[in-house]
Amino acid sequence: MTDVKVPLDVPECMRDQYIANYNMITAGSGRLMLFAGDQKIEHLNDDFCGDGIPADDADPEHLFRIASKAKIGVLAAQLGLISRYAMDYPNVPYLVKMNSKTHLVGVSQKDPVSPQLWTVDQIADIADRGVKIAGIGYTIYLGSEEEADMLAEAAQLINAAHQYGMVTVLWIYPRGKAVKDEKDAHLIAGAAGVAACLGSDFVKVNAPKKEGTNSAELLREAVKAAGRTKLVCAGGSSTSEEKFLKELYEQIHVGGAAGNATGRNIHQKTLDEAVKFCNAIYAITVENKTVADAVAMLK
Amino acid sequence: MTDVKVPLDVPECMRDQYIANYNMITAGSGRLMLFAGDQKIEHLNDDFCGDGIPADDADPEHLFRIASKAKIGVLAAQLGLISRYAMDYPNVPYLVKMNSKTHLVGVSQKDPVSPQLWTVDQIADIADRGVKIAGIGYTIYLGSEEEADMLAEAAQLINAAHQYGMVTVLWIYPRGKAVKDEKDAHLIAGAAGVAACLGSDFVKVNAPKKEGTNSAELLREAVKAAGRTKLVCAGGSSTSEEKFLKELYEQIHVGGAAGNATGRNIHQKTLDEAVKFCNAIYAITVENKTVADAVAMLK
Amino acid sequence: MTDVKVPLDVPECMRDQYIANYNMITAGSGRLMLFAGDQKIEHLNDDFCGDGIPADDADPEHLFRIASKAKIGVLAAQLGLISRYAMDYPNVPYLVKMNSKTHLVGVSQKDPVSPQLWTVDQIADIADRGVKIAGIGYTIYLGSEEEADMLAEAAQLINAAHQYGMVTVLWIYPRGKAVKDEKDAHLIAGAAGVAACLGSDFVKVNAPKKEGTNSAELLREAVKAAGRTKLVCAGGSSTSEEKFLKELYEQIHVGGAAGNATGRNIHQKTLDEAVKFCNAIYAITVENKTVADAVAMLK
Amino acid sequence: MTDVKVPLDVPECMRDQYIANYNMITAGSGRLMLFAGDQKIEHLNDDFCGDGIPADDADPEHLFRIASKAKIGVLAAQLGLISRYAMDYPNVPYLVKMNSKTHLVGVSQKDPVSPQLWTVDQIADIADRGVKIAGIGYTIYLGSEEEADMLAEAAQLINAAHQYGMVTVLWIYPRGKAVKDEKDAHLIAGAAGVAACLGSDFVKVNAPKKEGTNSAELLREAVKAAGRTKLVCAGGSSTSEEKFLKELYEQIHVGGAAGNATGRNIHQKTLDEAVKFCNAIYAITVENKTVADAVAMLK
Amino acid sequence: MTDVKVPLDVPECMRDQYIANYNMITAGSGRLMLFAGDQKIEHLNDDFCGDGIPADDADPEHLFRIASKAKIGVLAAQLGLISRYAMDYPNVPYLVKMNSKTHLVGVSQKDPVSPQLWTVDQIADIADRGVKIAGIGYTIYLGSEEEADMLAEAAQLINAAHQYGMVTVLWIYPRGKAVKDEKDAHLIAGAAGVAACLGSDFVKVNAPKKEGTNSAELLREAVKAAGRTKLVCAGGSSTSEEKFLKELYEQIHVGGAAGNATGRNIHQKTLDEAVKFCNAIYAITVENKTVADAVAMLK
Repeated sequence: MTDVKVPLDVPECMRDQYIANYNMITAGSGRLMLFAGDQKIEHLNDDFCGDGIPADDADPEHLFRIASKAKIGVLAAQLGLISRYAMDYPNVPYLVKMNSKTHLVGVSQKDPVSPQLWTVDQIADIADRGVKIAGIGYTIYLGSEEEADMLAEAAQLINAAHQYGMVTVLWIYPRGKAVKDEKDAHLIAGAAGVAACLGSDFVKVNAPKKEGTNSAELLREAVKAAGRTKLVCAGGSSTSEEKFLKELYEQIHVGGAAGNATGRNIHQKTLDEAVKFCNAIYAITVENKTVADAVAMLK
Repeated sequence: MTDVKVPLDVPECMRDQYIANYNMITAGSGRLMLFAGDQKIEHLNDDFCGDGIPADDADPEHLFRIASKAKIGVLAAQLGLISRYAMDYPNVPYLVKMNSKTHLVGVSQKDPVSPQLWTVDQIADIADRGVKIAGIGYTIYLGSEEEADMLAEAAQLINAAHQYGMVTVLWIYPRGKAVKDEKDAHLIAGAAGVAACLGSDFVKVNAPKKEGTNSAELLREAVKAAGRTKLVCAGGSSTSEEKFLKELYEQIHVGGAAGNATGRNIHQKTLDEAVKFCNAIYAITVENKTVADAVAMLK
Repeated sequence: MTDVKVPLDVPECMRDQYIANYNMITAGSGRLMLFAGDQKIEHLNDDFCGDGIPADDADPEHLFRIASKAKIGVLAAQLGLISRYAMDYPNVPYLVKMNSKTHLVGVSQKDPVSPQLWTVDQIADIADRGVKIAGIGYTIYLGSEEEADMLAEAAQLINAAHQYGMVTVLWIYPRGKAVKDEKDAHLIAGAAGVAACLGSDFVKVNAPKKEGTNSAELLREAVKAAGRTKLVCAGGSSTSEEKFLKELYEQIHVGGAAGNATGRNIHQKTLDEAVKFCNAIYAITVENKTVADAVAMLK
Repeated sequence: MTDVKVPLDVPECMRDQYIANYNMITAGSGRLMLFAGDQKIEHLNDDFCGDGIPADDADPEHLFRIASKAKIGVLAAQLGLISRYAMDYPNVPYLVKMNSKTHLVGVSQKDPVSPQLWTVDQIADIADRGVKIAGIGYTIYLGSEEEADMLAEAAQLINAAHQYGMVTVLWIYPRGKAVKDEKDAHLIAGAAGVAACLGSDFVKVNAPKKEGTNSAELLREAVKAAGRTKLVCAGGSSTSEEKFLKELYEQIHVGGAAGNATGRNIHQKTLDEAVKFCNAIYAITVENKTVADAVAMLK
Repeated sequence: MTDVKVPLDVPECMRDQYIANYNMITAGSGRLMLFAGDQKIEHLNDDFCGDGIPADDADPEHLFRIASKAKIGVLAAQLGLISRYAMDYPNVPYLVKMNSKTHLVGVSQKDPVSPQLWTVDQIADIADRGVKIAGIGYTIYLGSEEEADMLAEAAQLINAAHQYGMVTVLWIYPRGKAVKDEKDAHLIAGAAGVAACLGSDFVKVNAPKKEGTNSAELLREAVKAAGRTKLVCAGGSSTSEEKFLKELYEQIHVGGAAGNATGRNIHQKTLDEAVKFCNAIYAITVENKTVADAVAMLK
């Protein structure tokens, strides 16, 4: 078990709960494999029905079926979905995504903002009914004209979650008319530093990209800037499973990432294939396996 | 009786109340026939007085007279109307429409927003005085620049209603400068998925439309995306009663809809005709009758 | 005494208070003669000092002097004025106008909005000190881009007033860049229907106007749409007293109005003339007198 | 002692406190001499350091030194200043200016708004520590696009202050893109009427100005419109002391003003001269002296 | 020990705490050496990784390492960072920076606003867990179109901090489309006066600049305008250490500043050099050493 350093905004009486949640979703490895099941608002039905997407994915229950059969750290989803399915999938550890917006209004029309949908007290009520809710997630669009509202909500949600011993993950994406290159490594490092200043346990960022460079190496600046806040990379839209696993391995072992947050690459598969791929991701992230080991698991 | 799966945000002590409300408005069929009596704000007096609209419809009491004489699942109306008529129509099951706006300001002038008018606590006060209030309704204009406010209010209202064991219906209409085709099936499926993520019991959407396709078949994607949230179709503006009933039958038996929400097609009739048509809709929706059976009831 | 139908948002323990207030301001006739003394914010000093306005009207106390000497249903004014004069005019029944704006910013510059100035709890405090406060009033500019805020405040104020057994009057005026004809009969009927949906006891609208028609006949659609919410007409700017009284008579006996709300036509007179004119209005509205009877009272 | 008419929003148990505060700042004369020490936010350092301004004025303590040595009704200042100096100047009666903005953003850029900085409860806490806080002040920019926010805050602050028996002064200035002539007598009378409707004890307005007329005579309309709310004039930027005192005398004895609110004309002097000038203003305002008497005091 | 004058918004029972905090961060000298560690949001990663910045600075812990090994008055940082590192650096006195924004959206796009991230109650919770939190800081962009929100938040935060006996520092920067010269001495003096009116204990401003003048002399106006609020200068971007120390000495001994707030000039060094430079700054600020003494310490 990795020793968990409990932040000071967790009250004394909730330290054990915090450590338990932290260890539950990292399996004591300090690394987080987050299965992102929160895209039905962000991307509407685009990720769940269309060319090349198997029929399994059209039903929201697909996410819960995968999460219950595969090895995962935590399933991130909105509270509404969790409230309606978790009674049938009680062994899955959940992370409640606290805000979401659709992609209908683009940046050229209006800078993005995505307010909080629930309070942490409401999340805790569900947890008290026996659902394994280990934490919460929240998205900040850094550089949006509405950035200030999201920074303030994030700070308050982290504080509130820590009162319950819950773990927090910030999704931070630079986005807005003022943002020229959302994948710029230096900017992403800035985002990671913001998460540290807000006191989040984890920050999820997009992998940086620059023509002619290795993304995992570019990631190091952000990992450094995040300090004791752990950084996980968004899964992106890679197509080949092997390529995905190789990039993941490099993000962790070259870039210093403490895990990953993957959605489409998992659920846009049949149940059986999704479970296998989850397990492969988990093997690299949490079980310290090699790419070859993980690829072998897909067969 | 269909087995009712109680969502986890309903507290233990309110589960029986929730089940009772759910069964009251679906008559244990799992299908909802919602009589929409909330258009006096949305459409002002356009639906109630004009060419081809019988004089009966000019008086708001017409809605209550129909609801008390016909078979319906639930009458949706604003709290003001219910507060002033329900004492004389105590047997009607009500659903309080929590927000409304007029159509005076069009989308080309400003994207739509429609804030909450009452709190669920205030609704519960009226229910405590013996009015059969089974649930609440709320409209979201997805893709509006003000979408975020409505998503947040909806999430909070659903949570609050569930605390009282009330059932919830979200009206979700894609609308705003960013929305190109409000009737696009894929977009409507996205809206249905949003309702699921917010944890609503029912979602009311417009039937999808596409040149050269069958609307009921197009509806399947949305029904799938809604998952355990049940989908009902708005009645629209069909003119022929037989055509209306045929479409309704197909929405249920081809498209997989769990009911309908009908306003103008019911109340823009004399009391007598309105009651008959309500009963015909109810026969198909709840009593599993054929179109021919239902049409016969209109004679 | 007309039988008063108490709306369901009035709590059991406040039903008698509501009935008492309703009967106080209608003298048991079911009709309301409202003396509008709230224009010092809306019109600044334009209605109180200028050509053809007697010197009496320059002092706000003029309103209270008239109200105490004449027969009226209720004097509508802002809480500030009532707080400073009502100790000397304890027999006047008051209705607190809860919102007001100046006319300085025109519709071409910005759509109108007029937020609430006090809470109903604060009004009730004054009532508890022995001031006869029977109810509250609130203005909605329907069709304004800010309409949503006013609809929500109105719904909340009506609910709050009913908790204290107070009666409510909504002033609803269609106004804003989206409104082409503020006096359109169909639009005014829509406004009346909105008041019904919000649960107000009374709605004050401007008399509809259309070239070549009788305004009182046009009013019927609105009276019908208002249902159990009673409709009163704004006094407007008629100049001849006889013409004013004739129109008032027709609004009631042809149009079906349940009273009137008159300001300038009363207070832009010397105290003596104002009292006489008030009594004439009251005679028609509440005492069921003819126009001839009322005109005779002016001598 | 003038008999003080206590407004009805002052609770029974606070009537004596209100009367005591009213008499403290008017010395029982019914007239208010307000020393305006609140311009360090509105005008930044422009009034306190520059050509022709003595060095004494650069230090904020100058205001307190004057107020403690001269005869004044009340010193108006922000709570921050009072919190830091009042322990050394315990005999000064204070009025807390509750809102302030800088002049950096001009009307051509954005209409003015100036929100409340503290709550009345916070003011009362300081008063409980032995500081002689007699009341509060608040500025409204009438005709600003943001006017509504300020009207609502003013109404609430007056109500809250009266709960503690504190006296209120509204600064009302017509200002914004919609305002053509801020010094128009009729418009200023409108502002005075607004203060009456909001229930303020005093209203501070700029003296009206019109080519070829006497300002004091123009003021009468506003004094009339204010009713039982007492009107005081802003000191403006007159340079000659004698001219200032003559105008002040006329505002009171011709225009009917109940006092004045003077800032720059007092503090832009050395301590000694400022004290003398204060006493001269006080002599006319409160002690009913002639202009000649007052001018003699300056020697 | 300098005698500390406790402002009146500090409650009686918290006066000793306030004095203790004030003396802790000034070492009883009345002068404040503030180490600014709050730039990871404002400047993202620009100050921490780039050409000429040593690798040490990439890790947020660098700030804590410096603060624990060097002599400082107080380390300013966001609560998130403090929550995660202070358990390992318990001897450092902290000041929580309560608001922050990124520099992504420039003034030409939108005027700056930076809302509060935490409440003072939340800060006090952390202090109760044994972290030496002596005070809070907050930034106001004076002249921004959003200035009003920041003035109101600042006033409330100062009041709240004083309830706990915490010391306050306002960062005030004139910034926005309306601000022509952010370094104008007269404007900066205005900013200092605003801090006094809001009741802050300290105000941090940028050193004024004007071609051909001495900045320290220009500073005197602001020090005077601040009154009993103490003024500290931002460290700016000077490159030579000796020049920096000379300017600092002049700000204090010529300009009358009560200290400094330095960030980049400290942390953009290796740990060893940063500690030495901190101690040199401290020697001048708190220990009354000469520039030569301080420079000697760098060897």
